[in-house]
Amino acid sequence: MSAYDDLMAFQRETEALSMIAERLGWDQETMMPRGAAAQRAEETAALESVLHARRTDPRIGDWLARAEAPDAVGARALDLIGRSYNRNARIPARLAAELARLTSLAQGIWAEARAAEKPADFLPTLADVVRLKREEAAALSDGGDPYDALLDDYEPGATGQGIAAMFDRMRPRLVALRAAVLGADRQPPALDHVFPENAQLRLARICATAFGYDWTRGRMDIAVHPFSSGAGQDVRITTRISETDPFNCLYSTIHEVGHACYELGIDPDYHLTPLGRGVSMGVHESQSRIYENQLGRSAPFTGWLFQRMTEAFGDFGVADAGQFHAIVNRVTPGFIRTEADELHYNLHIMMRFDLERDLINGRLDVADLEEAWNSRFQTDFGVTVTRPSQGFLQDVHWSVGLFGYFPTYTLGNVYAGCLNKAMRAAVQDIDTRLAQGDAAPATGWLREALQRHGGLRPPAETITQACGFAPTEAPLLDYLEDKFRAIYGL
Amino acid sequence: MSAYDDLMAFQRETEALSMIAERLGWDQETMMPRGAAAQRAEETAALESVLHARRTDPRIGDWLARAEAPDAVGARALDLIGRSYNRNARIPARLAAELARLTSLAQGIWAEARAAEKPADFLPTLADVVRLKREEAAALSDGGDPYDALLDDYEPGATGQGIAAMFDRMRPRLVALRAAVLGADRQPPALDHVFPENAQLRLARICATAFGYDWTRGRMDIAVHPFSSGAGQDVRITTRISETDPFNCLYSTIHEVGHACYELGIDPDYHLTPLGRGVSMGVHESQSRIYENQLGRSAPFTGWLFQRMTEAFGDFGVADAGQFHAIVNRVTPGFIRTEADELHYNLHIMMRFDLERDLINGRLDVADLEEAWNSRFQTDFGVTVTRPSQGFLQDVHWSVGLFGYFPTYTLGNVYAGCLNKAMRAAVQDIDTRLAQGDAAPATGWLREALQRHGGLRPPAETITQACGFAPTEAPLLDYLEDKFRAIYGL
Repeated sequence: MSAYDDLMAFQRETEALSMIAERLGWDQETMMPRGAAAQRAEETAALESVLHARRTDPRIGDWLARAEAPDAVGARALDLIGRSYNRNARIPARLAAELARLTSLAQGIWAEARAAEKPADFLPTLADVVRLKREEAAALSDGGDPYDALLDDYEPGATGQGIAAMFDRMRPRLVALRAAVLGADRQPPALDHVFPENAQLRLARICATAFGYDWTRGRMDIAVHPFSSGAGQDVRITTRISETDPFNCLYSTIHEVGHACYELGIDPDYHLTPLGRGVSMGVHESQSRIYENQLGRSAPFTGWLFQRMTEAFGDFGVADAGQFHAIVNRVTPGFIRTEADELHYNLHIMMRFDLERDLINGRLDVADLEEAWNSRFQTDFGVTVTRPSQGFLQDVHWSVGLFGYFPTYTLGNVYAGCLNKAMRAAVQDIDTRLAQGDAAPATGWLREALQRHGGLRPPAETITQACGFAPTEAPLLDYLEDKFRAIYGL
Repeated sequence: MSAYDDLMAFQRETEALSMIAERLGWDQETMMPRGAAAQRAEETAALESVLHARRTDPRIGDWLARAEAPDAVGARALDLIGRSYNRNARIPARLAAELARLTSLAQGIWAEARAAEKPADFLPTLADVVRLKREEAAALSDGGDPYDALLDDYEPGATGQGIAAMFDRMRPRLVALRAAVLGADRQPPALDHVFPENAQLRLARICATAFGYDWTRGRMDIAVHPFSSGAGQDVRITTRISETDPFNCLYSTIHEVGHACYELGIDPDYHLTPLGRGVSMGVHESQSRIYENQLGRSAPFTGWLFQRMTEAFGDFGVADAGQFHAIVNRVTPGFIRTEADELHYNLHIMMRFDLERDLINGRLDVADLEEAWNSRFQTDFGVTVTRPSQGFLQDVHWSVGLFGYFPTYTLGNVYAGCLNKAMRAAVQDIDTRLAQGDAAPATGWLREALQRHGGLRPPAETITQACGFAPTEAPLLDYLEDKFRAIYGL
């Protein structure tokens, strides 16, 4: 065996073990009995310790030094393994262990502080997390920008400066559109009906099938916070159900189907290799968002969905498909990111991005975070935060050390805007087929243009190659303006 | 840290990883999408390779040489680790790898040959399995009896000679009882009714609760072949459903609850240590069998169950609780071990024990196995085997290399007979409470006397300590004779 073959065989086993870790996480959120948490924590820690030892195994360095890639795919695999290995090698074992220990504790402390509305109970822990993450960023950045070093974990190649510039270009158009929509005379009503859980779940399965989810390589279960997990031959999704808000279940499902179809669409030759996963958080989110929004909340698809809902629930108080489309896309101000509509969502992200960048770069102290959040929320959303659980305590991310993750949500929306533009130029019958509950022309194009390539190219290049142009924010903003002006009669 | 502490910390991580392997097996049989088999095989192999490396890690030998146990529990833990380590160290890596590869393939070959009724398609593979197992037995036995070396994996301390002697004492009484029962004038009818699946499952849950299954540390799902899996805080059971045979679902459930309660009842201090699992297959089976048979098929419990079934299914063609008890315990000759009644079951096992012992000790050739099976079946059961799937191809065990496993089923029955005798002498209100659908007096005694000790003592000592006498076959035979003479009016 050559050094290349040895490395690839070792890597393949590591990927298989990381699949197990992901499956264990799925089990924890869907199946695990509630009395098993302590034991599961020990099981997970044991597996993570095996994975960490493999990822920092010095043999990888030796193999990398001697390996010769047989082709471009192999070269990319070596590149990805090298990136990850060098990254891990820069982080002192002591820091890695401290971070793992602290962030596993911090999540519980955050959850309790949020439930009790007591920020003071969480701030010392958050300060520790920020301190350790800054230490990690310093170790990784090698004198460069610390925030960029963390961002690189989720969106390789992106920079805080580039994202900040893009967000600065987006904000005025979003704020103006938001003001116009909220001031419009025509305002869609809220749903006011009870939708039985079983019927919602049945309809969610129909929607998942409509978007091409492969049930022979997946399954759907209930979870508190919906997610998709796995890769290759086993990519499972979850959803949740609220009796009064069927869109929660249906659009969570379609969103997770987008994530799952990305993983399921990757070239089987890449399975269990470094190319066998979605290439970045931003590109992943582009798939979930385009399934959910540009396709799932489009007039043709909601027209079909209105018929299915009428069959499932009878008259639920909505006059026609037009009104239904408006209700699905209803814009309302609110405190909570995960409940935000397409228009407000990016404003939430921009705010988090600025705050977390300042925390990591030392321009904002954890002690001043709540004040900074509330003041910024007042400016951007025109609303006063009165409860920490509706303010800076709402998201789990920072407690578990996810700094540099938030901007990938809006990057995903931006990428989805680009892909939607390119796709509609390339494929003719998207809307006629969506109106029949069939997303195949759209999802087929996405699979060929993007999904099947997995990690073959870096994120921005993945989008550029799929679209035929480099990603910019313009298509997303054009799409949002066109859509909401039409719905609100502006 | 002392050598003892180092070893125990290492062992604990290994136990946690083996819990994950078990959970993965559960997922495969209950949840996994059907298209995920190939990837899962690779995941499982990767984890097994990690476990094998840990179990044969030379550091264990160093630690064992230097470790000093702080107490008797620690000494037993060292003893169990040493046994397992020395065992693994005796098997050449080449042989372990060949066995793993062959037995994973052989199971599929066996299943196809059984379905096609083509023994010739399986015999060459079985010959290879037997050859490798004989090689393994030779490596382990160090000049002693090869079969005993394999048996020791499942029932430490048992010997083929001791089991053969016990089976020889049991056989005449079982054969005589069987002849009397089948010749009796009074024969209970078979059930002839359709029992809806959901109602069966609801009743199975009620039965599991009646036998004290802890739902906060477990769950029940459907599987083709029911099993229980896990230990400590997460012990899950499975069942299956046949619309025409509700006893399949109900008594599979109670049987698996017995296994699960053993694991769940073990002292939490032993969790994730070598003492934290049931001590042997035989002792494990004693728990599943006493729950299922001595308690679950007793007249008081079936009296309660008859009421519950009447509530669930209406009039299902059984006159009264007395007739119901007879039907639950109906004795019928049949080819298939897993469908056998309490009386025939041990005759199945005795036959397999003799045949597999001859295979391993070189007294029987694989080429002559079918002939030997069929001739023995004619002698013991008075019936001619006409299809291999009803004969020597019916069980999966030999294809996956499980030689020495079969006798533990009857050992379990023998142990259950002893425990039942001791328990009934010690606890007064077992039957009155069973008649109310409450097994707590019985299961409470079993937990205190046996289950909580886990692997603290060797199997026979575990039974002796619980019963106050050394295990013999007499209590089981007395119980069977009393029970079936009463039911059949002999």
